[in-house]
Amino acid sequence: MSELRYNIISLQWVILATERAKRPRDFIKDKKDKQALPEYKEDCPFCPGNEALTPGETFRIGDALTWKVRAVCNKFGALSMSQNRERKVAGLRSFMNGFGDHEVIIENPRHNAFIALMSNAEVEDIIRVYKERYLSLQQEEGIEDIIIFKNHGPAAGTSLEHPHSQLVATPIVPPQIRQRVERAANFFDLTGRCIFCRTLEDELKEKERIIAETDKFVSFIPYAALSPFHTWIFPRRHVPSFAEITEEEIRDLAVNLKETLGRLYHGLDNPDFNYSIRSMPVNENGKQYYHWYVSIVPRISQPAGFELGSGMFINSALPDVSAQFLREVKI
Amino acid sequence: MSELRYNIISLQWVILATERAKRPRDFIKDKKDKQALPEYKEDCPFCPGNEALTPGETFRIGDALTWKVRAVCNKFGALSMSQNRERKVAGLRSFMNGFGDHEVIIENPRHNAFIALMSNAEVEDIIRVYKERYLSLQQEEGIEDIIIFKNHGPAAGTSLEHPHSQLVATPIVPPQIRQRVERAANFFDLTGRCIFCRTLEDELKEKERIIAETDKFVSFIPYAALSPFHTWIFPRRHVPSFAEITEEEIRDLAVNLKETLGRLYHGLDNPDFNYSIRSMPVNENGKQYYHWYVSIVPRISQPAGFELGSGMFINSALPDVSAQFLREVKI
Repeated sequence: MSELRYNIISLQWVILATERAKRPRDFIKDKKDKQALPEYKEDCPFCPGNEALTPGETFRIGDALTWKVRAVCNKFGALSMSQNRERKVAGLRSFMNGFGDHEVIIENPRHNAFIALMSNAEVEDIIRVYKERYLSLQQEEGIEDIIIFKNHGPAAGTSLEHPHSQLVATPIVPPQIRQRVERAANFFDLTGRCIFCRTLEDELKEKERIIAETDKFVSFIPYAALSPFHTWIFPRRHVPSFAEITEEEIRDLAVNLKETLGRLYHGLDNPDFNYSIRSMPVNENGKQYYHWYVSIVPRISQPAGFELGSGMFINSALPDVSAQFLREVKI
Repeated sequence: MSELRYNIISLQWVILATERAKRPRDFIKDKKDKQALPEYKEDCPFCPGNEALTPGETFRIGDALTWKVRAVCNKFGALSMSQNRERKVAGLRSFMNGFGDHEVIIENPRHNAFIALMSNAEVEDIIRVYKERYLSLQQEEGIEDIIIFKNHGPAAGTSLEHPHSQLVATPIVPPQIRQRVERAANFFDLTGRCIFCRTLEDELKEKERIIAETDKFVSFIPYAALSPFHTWIFPRRHVPSFAEITEEEIRDLAVNLKETLGRLYHGLDNPDFNYSIRSMPVNENGKQYYHWYVSIVPRISQPAGFELGSGMFINSALPDVSAQFLREVKI
């Protein structure tokens, strides 16, 4: 017996393959080259002392030599603010110059630091830098959307060990985000409710898929999780953009993020993962219907031809079982 | 200088990261455990002699013991025709039983066969089985869409070496497919043209991104390719569904598919890849505006947090350069 579930927020169907469901521990991957990282690596461009290798610092917490978090331009950035913001249409083709921004946020001076194992204050500082850069870039003429994300481990698309996040500011609203915003607006028009608030309400009522509850945030595996251990962290307060996170919420998100990533880290033996912060496009006002959140995707299964050919997903981990497993992990 | 391009068929923006563009040969991956496969493996469930391990044969070309291609039920199918087709809605939740079909198409008796290296007749037989199963399943009450796909290699989501494809028949139209069909209908309403025919026309005029032209099919790297060496094979004849492929077209597609996959195989040293056949949903009639095609996605780059968080793509291979490289590969 398998079951199809519709993810009303991502607008995707997922097949929960209960017949071939794996136990949570089956998702632990053998990592051939897993070894303890050193706290400092001389040739790492992000380690203290090598600041000259990452010029174009856009923000910093701490002093130049005893910094805590640094935001710097991505040396091989996909987009750049020095490009003209020029849009062209020729026949079927819409294209534009690579105007925008691409930054790296060096999360910590320690080469082997990891959010789940940092102090609360260290995690708060990372989130403060996210916010600072978000606020600054949303002032820039021509920036339409800002995506903050983290790639942890090779299966998540990074080869750099030193803990870092990234930020890309785009000159267009990505179509996928536009579509989700429209869906949320439709839901509001029909019901008078925010679809995210409503989803959180359901999850809190059922409790089965909750991972970590803190004062201001709730992390949970959604009812129609698209992939194994796919996790959302929703702010309890209804607010469309990450830009509006308060200092109190920053402190609480640090606690929630640490606990959620800690349960994944200890439960699945440090899995590779991506997370991203999903927010309202910067020049739009979705006050009533949009609600920012964090999406965490452990990269422990491989989307294949079916996913690429249909946009649907097959998930071989049951959301309730996965969440229960994570709740029981000792951290 | 990077450039943003809009993929008008997949409705996605891609950033062509020309600054960090790689040369085609840089995409060749070291495969630690690459070794010549044997022609026969005693413990392979798909090798001749082990037919009892794959019961539920739905179609076969050749005799029971000297078969050429076999279609069988997937033992751990994500969907099954024995489920009730029951749809439920409760609050925000839409779900249904796992009604549908999931089959494996064993492409060849030889454990080490590969489409690019098979005879034309062998590849034709694979496509004939695809068509046969497609035609049969589209008759089934409650089947709304049929996705035929192939996963080649671990990075493409398969661990089974024996050459095989798969077919999933779903009880719903996947939202991503619905969206593309609507987009094509809008384009037709506005211009009186099929968006696929129009795209093919442009590509044939510019010639730069063509990989292989045969009588009835053209393979090319699209102008806004989402990932390195992302390739489409379009039939020249405007027809919405793969179900309508003619015997003559089957023979020609075999030639084109062999050449296209052969150029990837020799040029990139047997890369892992997925392909899927994109067709009109089975109960719809998009005679004038939809056009089936094959999409090939080599799995030689890793979508990361940016892609997951925005639905946009960063592609570090330039479509024209990649296509020229493939055209020059000796096969």
